[in-house]
Amino acid sequence: MNPKKHQDIHLADIQLTAVRGIPEVRPGDDLGWLIAQATETQGFALADGDVVVVAQKIVSKAEGRLVNLESVTPSALAVEIAAKQHRDPRLVEVVLGESASIIRMDDHVLVTETKHGFICANAGVDRSNVAGKDWVALLPVAPDDSALLLKTRLAELFKVNVAVIITDTFGRPWREGLTNVAIGVAGMKPLKDFRGERDDHGKELSATVLAVADEIAASTGLLMRKASRIPVVVVRGFYFEHSDGSAKELVRAKERDLFR
Amino acid sequence: MNPKKHQDIHLADIQLTAVRGIPEVRPGDDLGWLIAQATETQGFALADGDVVVVAQKIVSKAEGRLVNLESVTPSALAVEIAAKQHRDPRLVEVVLGESASIIRMDDHVLVTETKHGFICANAGVDRSNVAGKDWVALLPVAPDDSALLLKTRLAELFKVNVAVIITDTFGRPWREGLTNVAIGVAGMKPLKDFRGERDDHGKELSATVLAVADEIAASTGLLMRKASRIPVVVVRGFYFEHSDGSAKELVRAKERDLFR
Repeated sequence: MNPKKHQDIHLADIQLTAVRGIPEVRPGDDLGWLIAQATETQGFALADGDVVVVAQKIVSKAEGRLVNLESVTPSALAVEIAAKQHRDPRLVEVVLGESASIIRMDDHVLVTETKHGFICANAGVDRSNVAGKDWVALLPVAPDDSALLLKTRLAELFKVNVAVIITDTFGRPWREGLTNVAIGVAGMKPLKDFRGERDDHGKELSATVLAVADEIAASTGLLMRKASRIPVVVVRGFYFEHSDGSAKELVRAKERDLFR
Repeated sequence: MNPKKHQDIHLADIQLTAVRGIPEVRPGDDLGWLIAQATETQGFALADGDVVVVAQKIVSKAEGRLVNLESVTPSALAVEIAAKQHRDPRLVEVVLGESASIIRMDDHVLVTETKHGFICANAGVDRSNVAGKDWVALLPVAPDDSALLLKTRLAELFKVNVAVIITDTFGRPWREGLTNVAIGVAGMKPLKDFRGERDDHGKELSATVLAVADEIAASTGLLMRKASRIPVVVVRGFYFEHSDGSAKELVRAKERDLFR
């Protein structure tokens, strides 16, 4: 290795670049185009092999996945849960509408399985970073499709072959704090399977399937601060095989899950 | 912003650099010194504000947290569990010895709470990347202390103020695949609390405590491949307040946890 050359931070193995200056996203907006405009202003161009990581919120906005609570009539169940949790029954109604099942509930928390199969608080329904007091954002209907659409659009605009990951911040059992995870994937496998490979001592590696899409999502969570408008981060230097892939591969089947 | 300047990848917001060439670590080794040697060869120097992320395995090895299964006599409980799971009863005995409680168990998986309070498979006891057929590595006794010791040593050797995170790969409920998480922290808070701050629309952010130490750990998991000898990754460009901190802050108290 050439030490001089390595001093150039060009050679940092993985580089995360925040895409700044994306405007407030509105229903119908072309996210690929907004990313192209923002990166051009920044003097940054996407390259083959980049992973373009996009916060769910702007995808939901572009797709019009917004609900005005004034239009919502809560069910009896929503009213009951809301009373117990001191929350807006209309919001609880929206959460239930996005859910396939309730996983856990107490006086504070409503953890459900979304229709996509993700398990998270409030089915991913969220008031923050949405304009208008009574408006909330829902998760995209089909985040893998959203990711693929964006991948295709970026290929047109930049003439590049990238992977796209759509992320949201989820809590998790046992550990405090939220982390950014992948809810939509296109262009790569979200899991990397090391089973059958051997370690440096020739021992076979067991049980080593790494959730690389979640690790990529988490890395970009370090830049997608909640209140600073950075909804897109480009990850460069992570080598992946170009491939179909779906965030559904990250969802553990119920019958394999000891914690439902 | 100067587009020309931004094209220099110097300006990637966060840079992850793998520290290569760390030799096989033995009990008593000075990890700080090994990192200093390896980074010097690489032509890379630590800087103030870097987060130095170290895989648990080399910390355990340096601290002599290695057990030869030939020295272990399994208890009746270990024999019973091992028979059910078709595993080595001596390994199960070591796992139970490292555990404060059993969280879940079936024919394949033994999820326990470690004496530190972490919940993971096999109490973090692991055969991979340990020399010798019957040797296994345990988690460090006090990973926060290990992190602080290394932080102090790096300050001596490099004259820098860094944070240190010690990581291991844990599974999680509901989602497939392992991710790298923080089990020891020094020099920073592992959680970043955004509560009370406002979003771009002036709405107060709620329930937004981010597990940044776990997100940093996850990012380095992209480079710490299981079988390629990269046990140390330097994260540059993540701004944190220098502070005391402990990975115990990442452990949800049992009474606040709906999933035990």
